[in-house]
Amino acid sequence: MGRPKSTRVDSVMHHVRERLAARALVPGERLPSIRQLAEQLAVSKTTVVEAYDRLAADGVIAARRGSGFYVAGHAPPLSLADVGPALDRSIDPLWISRQSLEAADTSLKPGCGWLPPSWLPEEELRRALRQIARAPQSSLLEYGRPYGHSGLREQLARRLADYGVPVGPQQLVLTDNGTQAIDLVCRFLLEPGDCVLVDDPGYFNFQALLRAHRVQVVGVPYTPTGPDVAAMATLLDQHRPRLYITNSAFHNPTGAVLSPLVAHRLLKLAEAHDLLIVEDDIFGDFEHESAPRLSAFDGLERVIQVGSFSKTLSASVRCGYIATKPEWCERLVDLKLATSFGNSPFSAEMLYELLRKGSYRRHLDSLRGRLADAMGETLLRLRTLDIQPWLEPRGGVFVWACLPGGLDAAEVSRAALADNLVLAPGNVFSLSQSATGYLRFNVAQCLSPRVFEGLERAMRKACVR
Amino acid sequence: MGRPKSTRVDSVMHHVRERLAARALVPGERLPSIRQLAEQLAVSKTTVVEAYDRLAADGVIAARRGSGFYVAGHAPPLSLADVGPALDRSIDPLWISRQSLEAADTSLKPGCGWLPPSWLPEEELRRALRQIARAPQSSLLEYGRPYGHSGLREQLARRLADYGVPVGPQQLVLTDNGTQAIDLVCRFLLEPGDCVLVDDPGYFNFQALLRAHRVQVVGVPYTPTGPDVAAMATLLDQHRPRLYITNSAFHNPTGAVLSPLVAHRLLKLAEAHDLLIVEDDIFGDFEHESAPRLSAFDGLERVIQVGSFSKTLSASVRCGYIATKPEWCERLVDLKLATSFGNSPFSAEMLYELLRKGSYRRHLDSLRGRLADAMGETLLRLRTLDIQPWLEPRGGVFVWACLPGGLDAAEVSRAALADNLVLAPGNVFSLSQSATGYLRFNVAQCLSPRVFEGLERAMRKACVR
Repeated sequence: MGRPKSTRVDSVMHHVRERLAARALVPGERLPSIRQLAEQLAVSKTTVVEAYDRLAADGVIAARRGSGFYVAGHAPPLSLADVGPALDRSIDPLWISRQSLEAADTSLKPGCGWLPPSWLPEEELRRALRQIARAPQSSLLEYGRPYGHSGLREQLARRLADYGVPVGPQQLVLTDNGTQAIDLVCRFLLEPGDCVLVDDPGYFNFQALLRAHRVQVVGVPYTPTGPDVAAMATLLDQHRPRLYITNSAFHNPTGAVLSPLVAHRLLKLAEAHDLLIVEDDIFGDFEHESAPRLSAFDGLERVIQVGSFSKTLSASVRCGYIATKPEWCERLVDLKLATSFGNSPFSAEMLYELLRKGSYRRHLDSLRGRLADAMGETLLRLRTLDIQPWLEPRGGVFVWACLPGGLDAAEVSRAALADNLVLAPGNVFSLSQSATGYLRFNVAQCLSPRVFEGLERAMRKACVR
Repeated sequence: MGRPKSTRVDSVMHHVRERLAARALVPGERLPSIRQLAEQLAVSKTTVVEAYDRLAADGVIAARRGSGFYVAGHAPPLSLADVGPALDRSIDPLWISRQSLEAADTSLKPGCGWLPPSWLPEEELRRALRQIARAPQSSLLEYGRPYGHSGLREQLARRLADYGVPVGPQQLVLTDNGTQAIDLVCRFLLEPGDCVLVDDPGYFNFQALLRAHRVQVVGVPYTPTGPDVAAMATLLDQHRPRLYITNSAFHNPTGAVLSPLVAHRLLKLAEAHDLLIVEDDIFGDFEHESAPRLSAFDGLERVIQVGSFSKTLSASVRCGYIATKPEWCERLVDLKLATSFGNSPFSAEMLYELLRKGSYRRHLDSLRGRLADAMGETLLRLRTLDIQPWLEPRGGVFVWACLPGGLDAAEVSRAALADNLVLAPGNVFSLSQSATGYLRFNVAQCLSPRVFEGLERAMRKACVR
């Protein structure tokens, strides 16, 4: 083997220095692999190795513990908006969260993901609060136990068993909310560069969350009976994903329900490809009767269930859970302590009171009836505007519907925002950006006729453009 | 350039396959870099490149987007206990958290980091709770705003300005707790493989938290006036760290206070080496008079201040904050929404009530007096057992003290635990494991004579072994 010609090495070094000067490569960024650059510049790998070594000796780049070469200096701080494909800010996964949370109290929010305050059991919550204010207990002053409130974990274990998910309290870790539950599981299972599958369309915050984990996110087309299993088989071969994140019960944004056939096939595929699954059960309590759950079919072997009560009870009672194998619980608790030092014993205590006394169950009974009425009403009004539901959901809060005449939902949403109406444009939910004509409606937020008046105006404005 | 000899390539492939068979390399693990393996096996880099390429063609290993070669299959889930050096479980950074949180109510906990419930303003907290239960407000039902409670952010901005940290409410992001605040900042600023400096000794949970970020953690020796600036200069040259995490006001575990001289030198070094600093102000409210703060000297240019009220008010009121530049606040809020979907408006409301009405200020006044008495008492009793304080703290809750006669603090702590006494052995706080003879005492948890009786018994037991 001869040494590479020094003029070639020089030209590779020159190429890298030029890209640095142009800020095409920035401090902390990984340089192309030796093979990539060799192919790109049509030189041998040895030439690139020597060029990189010399640049490293000059302090321009640095080798990092067996993982390749990096531009010297520090990486710029993480911007979620810059990770993944660049998107129009109005269909950025974070846009809808911010709009919904920042909206003035006078805004109408058919696009937001939660129930209006008037639908929540305010009086029961106040009563639970007064009780905690009176009771001689430590939840007011002390940290919670590492796994979380033990009485509440027992209550939750019983509820999950009712849904067919066999689980003991030692398999439940409480968290501050459902998103934190998913985040902990991602930290536990994922490494930067791993591949993760999400539904397309699917809940936008899964995308935002996964960006923070620096993983590759790939979409699986979603059908009215669950993810497209044939497409998933292909993606499993292509990308060897580590994890699939999905909703159980009513799917967000489509309102679809998993069929037993799809559930069974999906789990067989998962086993064959060593795929783990996170099933977010946040909409489970809206069900009239239990739909198939992956966690029930699988027995928590490769499916991890997470959930919370922010949608059904109150966004302010911050309490979520993770249900998984006992040996994973131990390590998830370590991670939880390291990254948040435990959770609010206070919210757990309130929730426990409401579950124990049956107030939560009674609240759900009336909620489901109200939601069914609102669903009927909303479907009717949408059809009046020629907006077609993708399917008629059996329950839950969401309708996924297509605008008429090729209207662009992002344009309609921008026009509506000027009118204090917060909509949820389809592409916020679509990794492939293939839901341009779709909107997600929250039926509980659609009861004012002003919603549809505003929507109609926005559709007309978007038309004229 | 000739092709590498095929026998050499074969022998490299054989070497890798053997290590795989022996599970010395596990699924998902990064293979040695081309250069490393070439050196190790005394073959050319080209030989290793060809061996890796062939193993990848066989599906045994996989190239990952320009970052090197990995064992095919998935990485095992993260275990914080396995990241970093293997430690005796009783001096593992997570051990002390678990012990303190899991301890029975009858345990004595001089090693834990927080105040006993009887020291906290229980009646004021109950009053705030009743007020929220009565008031016609949304904190009971809705998500908080993205930045957090605006009235509370104004209150906090005023308090920080009093400490000499110039900050507007638009520079404050509320979080669920102080640990979450640090975790968000780490997510924002760090990449896996980055280097981070912590104090040695220093707060153990910084170590545990940083393990979750997969960064290299390096200790800076701590002196009675702050970090050892000369040692830090050397470490900055050697490791080019991105971040330094430390406490302001009273240092944990030593109770030391930063001198203006050290603060000034440290900031000059940080500027010269592009080092960012997180200053955790969680003990600030225990001060009688303000010690120098890096964030005050620096004006929040490269210092980020975080804090919370879990130590001074209640561990159950989950509310922390990040103070930094407005443009970083925006992106931190994105990250917060993506990973926890906002925080508890409820805890923020309680805290706001207590700050606004002056109850918090009055509570602090009495707390500081009580702590000063407990400090005097504890120092006296420790000396009776010949346990020598490293310095006499000017205030706060902690005393860092050395056991007599070369006793091993981990052994003493194990013996004490059998006696229902939770101690904090020094090496939990020491990255270099150089605090074998030290214990951290929480003076507020040391008022029962049983603490020192148990300690004396444990010291005797540890002796005889």
